[in-house]
Amino acid sequence: MDTRPIGVFDSGLGGLTAVRELQRELPHEHIVYFGDTGRVPYGTRSAETLLEYAGQDSRFLLRQDVKMIIAACGTVSSVAKEVLDELPVPALGVVEPTAKAAAKATKNGRIGVIATAATIRSGAFERALKELGDYEVFTQACPLFVSLVEAGWIDPDDTVTKQVAERYLQPLKEQNIDTLILGCTHFPLLSPIIDSVLGGKVTLVDAGRETACACAEILTAQDALTDRVENGACRFYVSDRPDGFACVAEMFLGRQVEDTVSRVPMAVLTEQEGAL
Amino acid sequence: MDTRPIGVFDSGLGGLTAVRELQRELPHEHIVYFGDTGRVPYGTRSAETLLEYAGQDSRFLLRQDVKMIIAACGTVSSVAKEVLDELPVPALGVVEPTAKAAAKATKNGRIGVIATAATIRSGAFERALKELGDYEVFTQACPLFVSLVEAGWIDPDDTVTKQVAERYLQPLKEQNIDTLILGCTHFPLLSPIIDSVLGGKVTLVDAGRETACACAEILTAQDALTDRVENGACRFYVSDRPDGFACVAEMFLGRQVEDTVSRVPMAVLTEQEGAL
Repeated sequence: MDTRPIGVFDSGLGGLTAVRELQRELPHEHIVYFGDTGRVPYGTRSAETLLEYAGQDSRFLLRQDVKMIIAACGTVSSVAKEVLDELPVPALGVVEPTAKAAAKATKNGRIGVIATAATIRSGAFERALKELGDYEVFTQACPLFVSLVEAGWIDPDDTVTKQVAERYLQPLKEQNIDTLILGCTHFPLLSPIIDSVLGGKVTLVDAGRETACACAEILTAQDALTDRVENGACRFYVSDRPDGFACVAEMFLGRQVEDTVSRVPMAVLTEQEGAL
Repeated sequence: MDTRPIGVFDSGLGGLTAVRELQRELPHEHIVYFGDTGRVPYGTRSAETLLEYAGQDSRFLLRQDVKMIIAACGTVSSVAKEVLDELPVPALGVVEPTAKAAAKATKNGRIGVIATAATIRSGAFERALKELGDYEVFTQACPLFVSLVEAGWIDPDDTVTKQVAERYLQPLKEQNIDTLILGCTHFPLLSPIIDSVLGGKVTLVDAGRETACACAEILTAQDALTDRVENGACRFYVSDRPDGFACVAEMFLGRQVEDTVSRVPMAVLTEQEGAL
């Protein structure tokens, strides 16, 4: 039994879709969320820079005395896994749990992956799937999806977003995939559009949801769940000013936000490891 | 006479459209360019964060012994002008020169401004225009334009980009503007699309071009131009890894890039003022 919070971080606020799933799975757990809104997006950055940022984000969460860390960011999970592997608490990226769920879901063995440019370039989902079996994997970077979600153009009838989705997804449709990994935590907000472009025939696997389920399994196996009977609380930290946070957070969390949000100055974030 | 280089910075590589114009105006000058590609984009950040980043970017250029600094970034020019005003060398943002050019161009006094969300929120172009005369100013944030340019979807016939442009520009068309400020250095790459959506009836004022002209005027007035007879060189610095720099830079500069590009580590960038 461990009453300490679960730490979750992302490049920005997309990771809140994972928090939503985590709160469904484990409603009694406290959560500390860090969104690096001062340096979002990560999906276009180099591996070298991502390692640096992921280390800083993780160390910030460790200083909040968390019992586990989730990198709710497809890009960090793909490119900076080694940072997670070296942490002194259990740490989980989105790649392995999501690949497992996709492998379980596919019937014809043809799996698509959509994510940011950095995630696709890393080949992380492909590698994880190939380790699980002889799957045919088809990938597509969808960088504009993040901007469209952040612009709030997520209405299922939005003509621009539909057209962008058609352009990105057409090559995957032609490959006759039956399962599609949403490898970026922003993408579940576009699920209705993606589903409609794919004609409702493809199983969508949500990286945030699968990672939340995997987190619950790990904490259960380690007997590290809380014994709290009331609902857990969520503390939010961001690296840019939290203006308008409640509004955007509501979109990703799918509920009103009454929890506190604080800013982490960039100098605190870039403190060296010794300061841990 | 002053042979030192001109310093130019931007959140990323969009400011290279200003470098292109600067090299046209002042071919003999050396230029040092810094693009904060490790933290791009700036257009969605808070004023507080922008002041911090603009200070760091400027101090980096000062350490390269530049004779003048151009903030080739609509967002910094609008939100962090006070940083530029305090520098020990002449410094120029894009707002004033661009507003002046628009005021000169308009016939009916109805001027549109398109830029990032932070620039529009700041009201900087509106204030600058109102100081010059009794103009009617209509503004529109176009955050997706930056992503579309960075995705390379700039073909004049691109159906997605045209549709996004139509959505953003329709309200300005209805206001019967005759002049439109492109208040973000990414936007000149979309000039053909913007021009076509506006039916070829609106004068487009390019912030990069106007700022380059203003820079030439200041250096001439201060007798601070170089006496170099051969063409000047350009040194490029970026804060993320420079992979693929040549390719993207070519799009913005409109020419092949043979100059050197180096990475500035984030720790060098965030050094305190004392390190200047």
